[in-house]
Amino acid sequence: MSATFSNPSPAQITELRQLLGDRVVTDPAEIDAAAHDRSRYAPEGASAVLVRAGSTADVSCALAWAHEHRVPVAVRGAGTGVSGGAVGYPGGLIISLTGLNQITRIDEVNRLADVQAGVITSVLDRAANEHGLFFPPDPASVEISTVGGNIATNAGGLRCIAHGVTRDAVAALEVVLADGTVINTGARTRKNVVGLDLTSLFVGSEGTLGVITAATVRLKPIPPGTPHTFRANFDDIVAAGEAITAIVGGEAQPEVLELLDAASVRVIEAFHPTGLNVPNAAVLIGQTVGADAAHLADLITQTCAAHGATDLLISQSDSLLEARRLANPALTAQGLRVSCDVGVPVGELANVFRGIAEISERHGRAVSIVAHAGDGNLHPTVEAEDTPEGYAAAELVIDDITRLAISLGGTMSGEHGIGAVKHHELSAQLSDAVLGVQRSIKQTLDPHNILSPGRAI
Amino acid sequence: MSATFSNPSPAQITELRQLLGDRVVTDPAEIDAAAHDRSRYAPEGASAVLVRAGSTADVSCALAWAHEHRVPVAVRGAGTGVSGGAVGYPGGLIISLTGLNQITRIDEVNRLADVQAGVITSVLDRAANEHGLFFPPDPASVEISTVGGNIATNAGGLRCIAHGVTRDAVAALEVVLADGTVINTGARTRKNVVGLDLTSLFVGSEGTLGVITAATVRLKPIPPGTPHTFRANFDDIVAAGEAITAIVGGEAQPEVLELLDAASVRVIEAFHPTGLNVPNAAVLIGQTVGADAAHLADLITQTCAAHGATDLLISQSDSLLEARRLANPALTAQGLRVSCDVGVPVGELANVFRGIAEISERHGRAVSIVAHAGDGNLHPTVEAEDTPEGYAAAELVIDDITRLAISLGGTMSGEHGIGAVKHHELSAQLSDAVLGVQRSIKQTLDPHNILSPGRAI
Ligand SMILES: Cc1cc2nc3c(=O)[nH]c(=O)nc-3n(C[C@H](O)[C@H](O)[C@H](O)COP(=O)(O)OP(=O)(O)OC[C@H]3O[C@@H](n4cnc5c(N)ncnc54)[C@H](O)[C@@H]3O)c2cc1C
Ligand SMILES: Cc1cc2nc3c(=O)[nH]c(=O)nc-3n(C[C@H](O)[C@H](O)[C@H](O)COP(=O)(O)OP(=O)(O)OC[C@H]3O[C@@H](n4cnc5c(N)ncnc54)[C@H](O)[C@@H]3O)c2cc1C
Repeated sequence: MSATFSNPSPAQITELRQLLGDRVVTDPAEIDAAAHDRSRYAPEGASAVLVRAGSTADVSCALAWAHEHRVPVAVRGAGTGVSGGAVGYPGGLIISLTGLNQITRIDEVNRLADVQAGVITSVLDRAANEHGLFFPPDPASVEISTVGGNIATNAGGLRCIAHGVTRDAVAALEVVLADGTVINTGARTRKNVVGLDLTSLFVGSEGTLGVITAATVRLKPIPPGTPHTFRANFDDIVAAGEAITAIVGGEAQPEVLELLDAASVRVIEAFHPTGLNVPNAAVLIGQTVGADAAHLADLITQTCAAHGATDLLISQSDSLLEARRLANPALTAQGLRVSCDVGVPVGELANVFRGIAEISERHGRAVSIVAHAGDGNLHPTVEAEDTPEGYAAAELVIDDITRLAISLGGTMSGEHGIGAVKHHELSAQLSDAVLGVQRSIKQTLDPHNILSPGRAI
Repeated sequence: MSATFSNPSPAQITELRQLLGDRVVTDPAEIDAAAHDRSRYAPEGASAVLVRAGSTADVSCALAWAHEHRVPVAVRGAGTGVSGGAVGYPGGLIISLTGLNQITRIDEVNRLADVQAGVITSVLDRAANEHGLFFPPDPASVEISTVGGNIATNAGGLRCIAHGVTRDAVAALEVVLADGTVINTGARTRKNVVGLDLTSLFVGSEGTLGVITAATVRLKPIPPGTPHTFRANFDDIVAAGEAITAIVGGEAQPEVLELLDAASVRVIEAFHPTGLNVPNAAVLIGQTVGADAAHLADLITQTCAAHGATDLLISQSDSLLEARRLANPALTAQGLRVSCDVGVPVGELANVFRGIAEISERHGRAVSIVAHAGDGNLHPTVEAEDTPEGYAAAELVIDDITRLAISLGGTMSGEHGIGAVKHHELSAQLSDAVLGVQRSIKQTLDPHNILSPGRAI
């Protein structure tokens, strides 16, 4: 797709300020602070202007301006993304959604919430809790990411094995298209087959097709009973993989089923001790819910034991999951930033663990693994020296792991998305024809290619 | 969207026959038999040619031919649709998918089936049953419709309240685009955020964006225990609506929750007696599953009793659901063909029942109701004389019911789709901007507008 961008002229910035007043930020330090996300990907140059939108109309106005003047736009929730999707463009506009932070309505009877895009995920969840409901998507970043960002990345999290991904929780959207047009997609009903499923098209589109300003999301009733967490240590990660496959295929279903390998546990416990024992190879931690949560936890740990697990523990405290939630900040603090987000069918877990061990050995580089194990989504992290060469060598390991996952019927990204970081790899998974279809849809919705150009699709 | 179609010349038909041999049918009687669906919508003229595809390559070849020669194409599964979506075009091509009838693989560990589009839904379900699994989508037409047709219409059914709609069961698709290009969308993993969600875009697209030739669908484990069915008769349909809202909002969740009003029960029992008592106003019938199915059925009927229901029955036989499955053929046999497929948020059921009674009275026309009550999806049927005037008068009643549903936050179609029959009504629900987005996507994927032109979107 061809696109010619211009840096907005001072007169054009003045025009924008006349339209949006002090929502328009031109202070370089403030702009720079809003130009990064949590990936290693850095802006290629300073953005020209930041709009802190306070309403859908602000977003519409800013996009119409960018569309007219051919200014590239980075769309930004909380900037917790790890794929470079929200990073600013040189001379570009950044639209920040965090000012759209209202929960408009919790409809208890129909279990729906109307929410603006900039609401922090856990704020929505707690508001739902007051009605005996909860918001199913729970990325480990739940306290710092926005609902709009979750929708734009189709975020996963810890509870997907029981509740699906963010897409499954989205009933309807308000979206501003590239030229400023506002549309509403979806419906408040459980079933709706009127026209194309535009809602799903925008979910996971990572800021390339439109800016999500509000959503109607589906809530679920808080299960009765006390949640139980469990832990099982394995001496062999391949056996852990087999245990996970058996659990997922069994009758007792967990709400959460996560894996941390020994190296990851060591890093987490050094970063912030949670009391987790370092396993010989890997620990499975999870949670069961519902009236028979204790019984389910019992059955699941029995399955683990049958696959050789030891040091079994069932508890009513949340501290086991806390360790899992700390994985990302702990690894990042250690400088362990070369990681990926591959997914495999859950029956291939043992094979993917075996393959990663081989790849690690072949490259002579340690690979640690944190995984949303129950749904086959892995975050392997490769040890790398903090030099361009070190990163480049580690990236080769990631490339091999990605190819391995795809060869097992898997995917290069289970939940983090493509953004800028993985864009060059798309053709490892998608055919030219599919890439062509994606780009033609992009082209028709955003003819000047102003929205997140060169990313995600 | 403008489009100029030509009737294929004899030379062009010969060209197609050279490509596809005896898969090409030109016998007018055979073509006509394949040019109808189960709606009242009749073809506006004879189709020129029918291709009984036996492979993806056949579909690709036929579409490339139609694309080149600008021939309008009707895509056809089993033709059980009720919206005119599969009806042939004058001088057009009909592609029938029923020859693509192989179940390629049942992947028990990952609970996936690879299936061709023409496989009959219940055949897939029974094949899955042999592995302890089932295929969740179960339209009442499960014995006669195809998996591809279910996907193309995003079909609903009796179990949506527990298992979602067809989209929720689709992991990946093989699709032939208008120009004959074959693409694969989706993945075999539970989570996948690589690129746009093209899978969901094709689900429910009713033959307008491409021809679905194969799918990877998600299966579920058959719940343990014995399913229990239940029945509760109401003297007041508004009270039944309130009971449904209470059940759906309660702790005991049914797998099936259907409503038949008295008039519908009378028609069904006259058509094929199933032993259902005619209620004073409406009967709720449903099913519970799982180890505590009996207990759940008990709790649900208690909720019904609390809302005034009488004649409560819990049973282990399937005969209660049989009555529900007979509703469509029974009403059709009675000539009761003017019906619709509106949906409302489940909290609005009492209001929609009240409103339909008012509309019925205002028009002086009896309206009977069959509903997938648990998910708020209603099929009201209007009494109509078998004359153009009779139908026109009944359509006015349907229009009022549709407007009512939309005003309650609902939809004009919960599961049957838009097809040809409801196409003129789209703007009652979708804004011009949304219609524009849909048509621009259609235009970019099918530039000559050969696929199901003038329908669905
Ligand atoms: C500690 C930590 C743990 C994490 N754990 C998880 C996890 O378990 N699962 C998971 O999936 N992710 C996880 N993430 C990644 C990240 O939090 C998610 O991708 C999250 O959904 C991003 O939300 P955000 O508001 O920060 O979006 P941003 O980072 O601001 O943006 C992410 C992408 O979405 C686009 N976008 C944002 N808002 C909008 C909008 N309103 N309209 C259109 N496009 C928009 C951006 O352009 C960008 O492409 C984690 C990150 C951290 C730092
Ligand atoms: C007795 C009866 C009961 C019914 N009950 C229900 C119900 O409970 N729930 C429900 O949702 N529906 C129900 N239906 C409607 C109908 O059965 C469904 O819409 C079904 O999904 C259609 O499948 P089919 O194979 O017959 O498709 P067709 O009728 O042949 O086609 C339907 C639409 O899909 C398109 N299409 C079909 N196959 C493909 C393909 N492979 N690729 C692209 N496009 C394709 C067609 O062009 C058309 O627009 C019922 C119908 C009957 C007659």
